[in-house]
Amino acid sequence: MKKEFFSVKTVAQVQNDFRPQRRTAVEDISLHTGVGRVASKAILSPEDLPGFARSAVDGYAVKAADTFGASPSLPSPLNLIGDIPMGEEPRLVIKPGTAAAIATGGVIPSGADAVIMVEHTLLQSANTLEIFKAIAPGEAVVRANEDITAGSLILNSGCTIRAEHLGLLASSGTTSFSVFSQPRVSIISTGDELVAPHSTNLSPGQIRDSITGLVTALVQKSGGIPISRGIIPDNPKYLRAEFEEALKTSDLVVVSAGSSVGERDITAEVINSLGKPGIWCHGIAIKPGKPTLLAECRDIPIIGLPGNPASALVVFKLIGIPLLRLIGGHTKPLTPATTRVLLARDIPSVAGRLDVVQVKLVKGHAEPLFAKSSALSALAQADGQILIPEEASGLYENTEVTVELHE
Amino acid sequence: MKKEFFSVKTVAQVQNDFRPQRRTAVEDISLHTGVGRVASKAILSPEDLPGFARSAVDGYAVKAADTFGASPSLPSPLNLIGDIPMGEEPRLVIKPGTAAAIATGGVIPSGADAVIMVEHTLLQSANTLEIFKAIAPGEAVVRANEDITAGSLILNSGCTIRAEHLGLLASSGTTSFSVFSQPRVSIISTGDELVAPHSTNLSPGQIRDSITGLVTALVQKSGGIPISRGIIPDNPKYLRAEFEEALKTSDLVVVSAGSSVGERDITAEVINSLGKPGIWCHGIAIKPGKPTLLAECRDIPIIGLPGNPASALVVFKLIGIPLLRLIGGHTKPLTPATTRVLLARDIPSVAGRLDVVQVKLVKGHAEPLFAKSSALSALAQADGQILIPEEASGLYENTEVTVELHE
Repeated sequence: MKKEFFSVKTVAQVQNDFRPQRRTAVEDISLHTGVGRVASKAILSPEDLPGFARSAVDGYAVKAADTFGASPSLPSPLNLIGDIPMGEEPRLVIKPGTAAAIATGGVIPSGADAVIMVEHTLLQSANTLEIFKAIAPGEAVVRANEDITAGSLILNSGCTIRAEHLGLLASSGTTSFSVFSQPRVSIISTGDELVAPHSTNLSPGQIRDSITGLVTALVQKSGGIPISRGIIPDNPKYLRAEFEEALKTSDLVVVSAGSSVGERDITAEVINSLGKPGIWCHGIAIKPGKPTLLAECRDIPIIGLPGNPASALVVFKLIGIPLLRLIGGHTKPLTPATTRVLLARDIPSVAGRLDVVQVKLVKGHAEPLFAKSSALSALAQADGQILIPEEASGLYENTEVTVELHE
Repeated sequence: MKKEFFSVKTVAQVQNDFRPQRRTAVEDISLHTGVGRVASKAILSPEDLPGFARSAVDGYAVKAADTFGASPSLPSPLNLIGDIPMGEEPRLVIKPGTAAAIATGGVIPSGADAVIMVEHTLLQSANTLEIFKAIAPGEAVVRANEDITAGSLILNSGCTIRAEHLGLLASSGTTSFSVFSQPRVSIISTGDELVAPHSTNLSPGQIRDSITGLVTALVQKSGGIPISRGIIPDNPKYLRAEFEEALKTSDLVVVSAGSSVGERDITAEVINSLGKPGIWCHGIAIKPGKPTLLAECRDIPIIGLPGNPASALVVFKLIGIPLLRLIGGHTKPLTPATTRVLLARDIPSVAGRLDVVQVKLVKGHAEPLFAKSSALSALAQADGQILIPEEASGLYENTEVTVELHE
């Protein structure tokens, strides 16, 4: 049995310096599949929006000058000459002393330069309208390019497409646009002790593979396409064959490297034989999750996760998901939902590594779940997690901390 | 043209008091489709996990008593009797004075009660091991039920299924479980001025329907299934027929009620004729978004959105998504990602209504996007939004505010 020596990097070094060039291919998609995708080039509006001057209120299209001096005590009478139909170009023309009924969204008729709200008027007869308020030119008129001008930016390359962008794209008639493809993530599990989740009557020593399932879930949630390659025997030949296939069809390969030293060695050796530049780091200064491996072979990034499922999950969330987003064209990090609370008790830590501590929120305090720090059940019970930075050697009870909420 | 009188409710009243009983049906799904779904009953682990006592480290299984008194200057020698194979029940037995090599995850052999890490040992010969450290019974041993005990809770009804839950479900052999179905949300757009997004050569007065697209996006993102019913003419007969169909196949109906008074009246009348209890409120004290309608007919909640797309989006995010989640079985609200920053300038507001103000983050300050408050482009450009509560009549420059980040 060998003692292991890791070439350990800090989480900050990983986040700043492990920046593979790999990006997914570009594809055109249609509007109704766009939400959450990433624009692969800037998208401009081909048209002015709304495209015509329209009323912002229900009321009457007028010449503003005809309202000057009007007040509740001295209303101005106008001659009502008709209704503006919705969705059509009005045929009538507003001349001095006249008005036309217009609904929100109606086209401002020729000659009108303002709309007076119905609340400031009184219909005295079928064609006589009294105006109680003076309004300025432009009042309640939405200009033809007030929302967006033809040629201006709807969203930038590398941005996540949100509902509001899709609304603008629909408004401007842009029903197809270019995005980064969803990253394909191959997931390989190794470990002679592993059996598939549907297995029954396990022998002592066997455990069901849970890392494939949890990485699958995190990939789906982060906009990637998981490709489960199943459980591979601890044999360099099989593992290499599996990697060869995975590298051909993936933008990212995730391997959970078994938990025994032998398996970890095999995985590292196989990865190093796959191509340049090979292993970038073997070991990250994080707890849980130290035995993590990062590599890049034939332009494809590879993450070797710890064999402990809880550690694998913590590492994949902290390092795998940002990497997945980078490959998928995102240019901005995801901000987690957080809450600021007091710590219910001391948390000891070791300087020089990032500690990820699971907590429950109890009566406005963060209660650390120490007992089972390496257990998936601690993550499942936790409301969120606290990151204790490398420079700290622990946190005292009643310190105000930021809890990243699990979602 | 009629003046409108709204029966206005505050956003807090809506959130607290508009609580339809409707819940989606329950269905069984399999592991790999579980992430983000909502458990419809408590899920318990059928088994102890890990199911057998296993080693937490790479090292040697020993009787702890054999290490008592050992130190680097006075090592205890042990007789190395073999290796524990991974994934199998060990046949060897640890008797006093013996040890067996064990990898992380290996089954603790009979007779052993602790594992000493390889770092605290030296292999003197093929079968002589020196121990440099005294360890207590239980050291580096994961008990058979240490992660979870058979019969204990993996997650509660109404909780969102996360990766860690799926990991536990996989570990425990639970490959199928019961969840709430995804809410089916019918989306109806009305308005004589509306044309489909793919339309070209619009006449003045026509605009493309953007609300269907943006509600579709928000429903998809929130775990619902959007059913676009297209653009319906402003005719009570057609609108009623559309609602009749929608009520049969939906858990929630969203109608964007056109922007003219006539259309809004038609929509409200048709909704009120569909069944009890009918309209719950017509108007919400929010800006933008006042002309919002909430109703419940034949057990199906209905949201009437404002015709202005930006207003529709703000309202659907604030009121529609929580409603969608309620119907879909969620018991916890979603916490938005936020940041605390200073306000770059004063924001005037009106007491008694909730103001939703779009902001850009510029040099650590929140810069309100006033100019186009009713425009979708303001939402598209914004990094987030500030909620100015009902009791405030504005916020001063340099106030520290919480910005809800757009994602």
